[in-house]
Amino acid sequence: MAITVCFSVFLLVNILQLNALPAFEYNQTSTAIVPKSIGQPWPMPAKYSSNSDLYSINSENFKFIATGESCDVLYQAFVRYRRILFGKDQEVLKFKPHGKHSKAGSFDILYVNQLNRCDTYPSLNSDESYTLSANASGLHLQANSVWGALRGLETFSEIVYQLDDGTFVINGTAISDVPRFKHRGLLLDTSRHYLSLKTIKDNLDAMAQVKYNVFHWHIVDDQSFPYQSSMFPTMSQEGAFDQRHIYSQSDIKSIIEYARLRGIRVIPEFDSPGHTQSWGKAIDNLLTKCYSGGKFNGNYGPIDPSVNTTFTFLINFFKEIAELFPDKYIHLGGDEVSFSCWKSNPDITKFMAEMGFASNYSRLEEYYMQNLLDIISDLKKGYIIWQEVIDNGATVSADTVVEVWKSGYPAELEKITKLGYQTILSSCWYLNYIKYGSDWLPYYMCDPHNFNGTAKQKELVVGGEACMWGEYVDDTNLMSRTWPRASVVAERLWSAVDSISDTAGVQDRLEEHRCRMVKRGFPAESINGPGFCRDEFVPHE
Amino acid sequence: MAITVCFSVFLLVNILQLNALPAFEYNQTSTAIVPKSIGQPWPMPAKYSSNSDLYSINSENFKFIATGESCDVLYQAFVRYRRILFGKDQEVLKFKPHGKHSKAGSFDILYVNQLNRCDTYPSLNSDESYTLSANASGLHLQANSVWGALRGLETFSEIVYQLDDGTFVINGTAISDVPRFKHRGLLLDTSRHYLSLKTIKDNLDAMAQVKYNVFHWHIVDDQSFPYQSSMFPTMSQEGAFDQRHIYSQSDIKSIIEYARLRGIRVIPEFDSPGHTQSWGKAIDNLLTKCYSGGKFNGNYGPIDPSVNTTFTFLINFFKEIAELFPDKYIHLGGDEVSFSCWKSNPDITKFMAEMGFASNYSRLEEYYMQNLLDIISDLKKGYIIWQEVIDNGATVSADTVVEVWKSGYPAELEKITKLGYQTILSSCWYLNYIKYGSDWLPYYMCDPHNFNGTAKQKELVVGGEACMWGEYVDDTNLMSRTWPRASVVAERLWSAVDSISDTAGVQDRLEEHRCRMVKRGFPAESINGPGFCRDEFVPHE
Repeated sequence: MAITVCFSVFLLVNILQLNALPAFEYNQTSTAIVPKSIGQPWPMPAKYSSNSDLYSINSENFKFIATGESCDVLYQAFVRYRRILFGKDQEVLKFKPHGKHSKAGSFDILYVNQLNRCDTYPSLNSDESYTLSANASGLHLQANSVWGALRGLETFSEIVYQLDDGTFVINGTAISDVPRFKHRGLLLDTSRHYLSLKTIKDNLDAMAQVKYNVFHWHIVDDQSFPYQSSMFPTMSQEGAFDQRHIYSQSDIKSIIEYARLRGIRVIPEFDSPGHTQSWGKAIDNLLTKCYSGGKFNGNYGPIDPSVNTTFTFLINFFKEIAELFPDKYIHLGGDEVSFSCWKSNPDITKFMAEMGFASNYSRLEEYYMQNLLDIISDLKKGYIIWQEVIDNGATVSADTVVEVWKSGYPAELEKITKLGYQTILSSCWYLNYIKYGSDWLPYYMCDPHNFNGTAKQKELVVGGEACMWGEYVDDTNLMSRTWPRASVVAERLWSAVDSISDTAGVQDRLEEHRCRMVKRGFPAESINGPGFCRDEFVPHE
Repeated sequence: MAITVCFSVFLLVNILQLNALPAFEYNQTSTAIVPKSIGQPWPMPAKYSSNSDLYSINSENFKFIATGESCDVLYQAFVRYRRILFGKDQEVLKFKPHGKHSKAGSFDILYVNQLNRCDTYPSLNSDESYTLSANASGLHLQANSVWGALRGLETFSEIVYQLDDGTFVINGTAISDVPRFKHRGLLLDTSRHYLSLKTIKDNLDAMAQVKYNVFHWHIVDDQSFPYQSSMFPTMSQEGAFDQRHIYSQSDIKSIIEYARLRGIRVIPEFDSPGHTQSWGKAIDNLLTKCYSGGKFNGNYGPIDPSVNTTFTFLINFFKEIAELFPDKYIHLGGDEVSFSCWKSNPDITKFMAEMGFASNYSRLEEYYMQNLLDIISDLKKGYIIWQEVIDNGATVSADTVVEVWKSGYPAELEKITKLGYQTILSSCWYLNYIKYGSDWLPYYMCDPHNFNGTAKQKELVVGGEACMWGEYVDDTNLMSRTWPRASVVAERLWSAVDSISDTAGVQDRLEEHRCRMVKRGFPAESINGPGFCRDEFVPHE
């Protein structure tokens, strides 16, 4: 065991700013630009204090030791964070799954005390809180659940930093952390462009770095159907861009497992009844035939709710989805349904009359959604839906999560929560809308509690999602457009609102965070103008 | 030797569109989207015709044979294009540097007949014309210079394509090509962010793919001075971001050689007297001291033209630059000079009075530029300058190239050419200004001849430059933001204006071009909305 020493304290105190948030300044004569944030975490923990005591970390022999409960998720995190921290795999990790370990005051060990048995899969109500301390008695992380332990390990990996001479150090630190919102998601769209498994997994790593806990996988849409169904294999055969652009069942399982190990839920979206052009290529009579001048004109509209075969298909299809994806929730879409094709079709007109819908096509949409929601409920799953489903008056089950994406979101959040539904916000976080220059501050300032409502209404806001729609991104540019921009949404969703309401210093921490992403191998782009990272991104060879 | 065959002509004719521009359509039942352009070059050659005759190419034994003059540039291009075409290095290339080779009607050889001895370095007046043919008598490329041969090899590599079964084929083709403009440049900025040698070389490869012939290297600016001078090594020691962010003399020589082998001139820009904050850190008294309330306020302004030491420094500094960079031209900048610091400085005020400049600071700027231009002329170099130098009334030598970058470029081009100077345009091609969606058409439609002027004036427009200023790009995102967007400027500068005035089909060719870039390993982003490349970009492992 290494002896605990305050590494060169006299020298270091000179160059350390003795604030709660420690900051270095380089010698002005040797560098042009002064990194103002070193060893500060992103997102900011709920309670965070640090002091100028500086402890060295023995990187050669560093160990994570589990003093409480443990499991594969924790063990694999130890391996991962050792590599993240010290840049290589350690051949042997001392892993003590049960039993108490006496405090040794040593600094080559992080003691991880996880109090409860590991959950196998994260959920909306997972406990992600943890405490983390570095002081004379050593390095200690405590959490109620393995998901909290993961969050604490990430924070630990960020507050350890390297001095110029290569020494790893940590400041005296006390952290008590808990997320402000429990649903913190990132949407990726694999229909407008295909994304490789590598890119999706890189995103999951980047998400874990900023404590996102939901990967909202907008897997199919009008443009392509890359989901390879077991029961309906022709859907991807006919609907994918080509057969190199599909996700097999085992591909999807590998993504779910990769996410699970990082405490990230995978919520697939199979958006209907609109946005389904690619579904219809293989499934006869699923889509509505559009008419012109009394004849089928060759075009198709939304799913046809007037025929029983539609719901037979949906029962079988979503049964497969419900079995493949372990999460409690499925995203059912329900946005942007165009009525023009329904209006043109004589069979739909007849069905509307039989049902007594008059010419109110919102009622037809509601009819479709209500049937679909019942199918999902029968499968013992919950659902997330885009706001239009509620706007059109459908009745949904009490644990439904409604995703608000349109402009005018404060009024919508007020309405949805007044109805008693849980809600998540994405309106202000469409990261695909790029513009020149530094664009992150409006994302950062958008707050999901920015609406008129009671405390009870505010509690129904369970979080939000950053969205990277896929029209203009694929494997060539998705990572650099998404990161570090998605990180500012992650901080808004994690950190205590008072701790981030003062934006002074945020840019400096964000710069450090970006460079930390780059050092981990992600092409997180520059978003604050001229500058550099000490360790720059190494381009593709 | 492979036997020339029309590969499966009957089948192929069915799926070939028998137009001058051949196009494939995939079987509609197996793919969602129809690639509409296959085997078409970008930029469009001056004269291009193809027919439905389809010749197979023996990729295993394919050879380039030089039947005329040859040299290292041509030889290395043969190696490079064999790898680009067929994906691997061939252990032995049959290379016949001199002597005639009889036509064999064979299709495992491209005969390259270069008529004149190789130039060692390209210039503004290099002959880049070539002819290329594929017909029953074989594959033939002819050029007056090695630079033309390079352009023809690139075109050849684009019109050869692979069928679904892996067979390489080429349509019967007749091309007679010559660039419309002789200066076709791309500016990269390594001061606002550092770019690795790998990224710069990747750009040179991408530039060669679209026949750019000038790399305008905006190497230093206010923010950092990564150029490591032999004579003034303290300039990068003090002025670079840090010592991992510099270009050594040998780094620069490697870039120049990499560019030369691709027929690309490297024109360095050392912008002065403004944009020089980073220069002043190591060179005493070079920058003007700014005054407030009668005292030096700690800030510095543009280079100080009132002291002789300035010009002594410039003579020595630019002597080194002139020796390092083989190109005839150096870019001297001269843009955006702020007068406020000059106005505040009492020594400058005194100098102005002595020189009889009254309070006309444009005359001081002109005085500085005139001295600098004389220094460069004495070094037997030509110069490129930003438009302000002319706008401020400086007299420049007859072979000067004036770069127009401000808005209102038609009037400026008219003025510059009326004065008899050569000019290049970049105003409408600032690629760093990104926006959401498909933004390439305005770049494509901008034409350097879009101004009122005589034929003689139009002739003075020698080309243009796309600019990727570095405020928000570095190794993480430079390639994907620059490409394929810079390609549309390259076509505007290369292709005959009548051949591209009809933009029908341009988007399809651009899509094919982007996918060809992706297949070559460049992360050229999607710029036309949803879709895919058969061979997608493979992200960094």
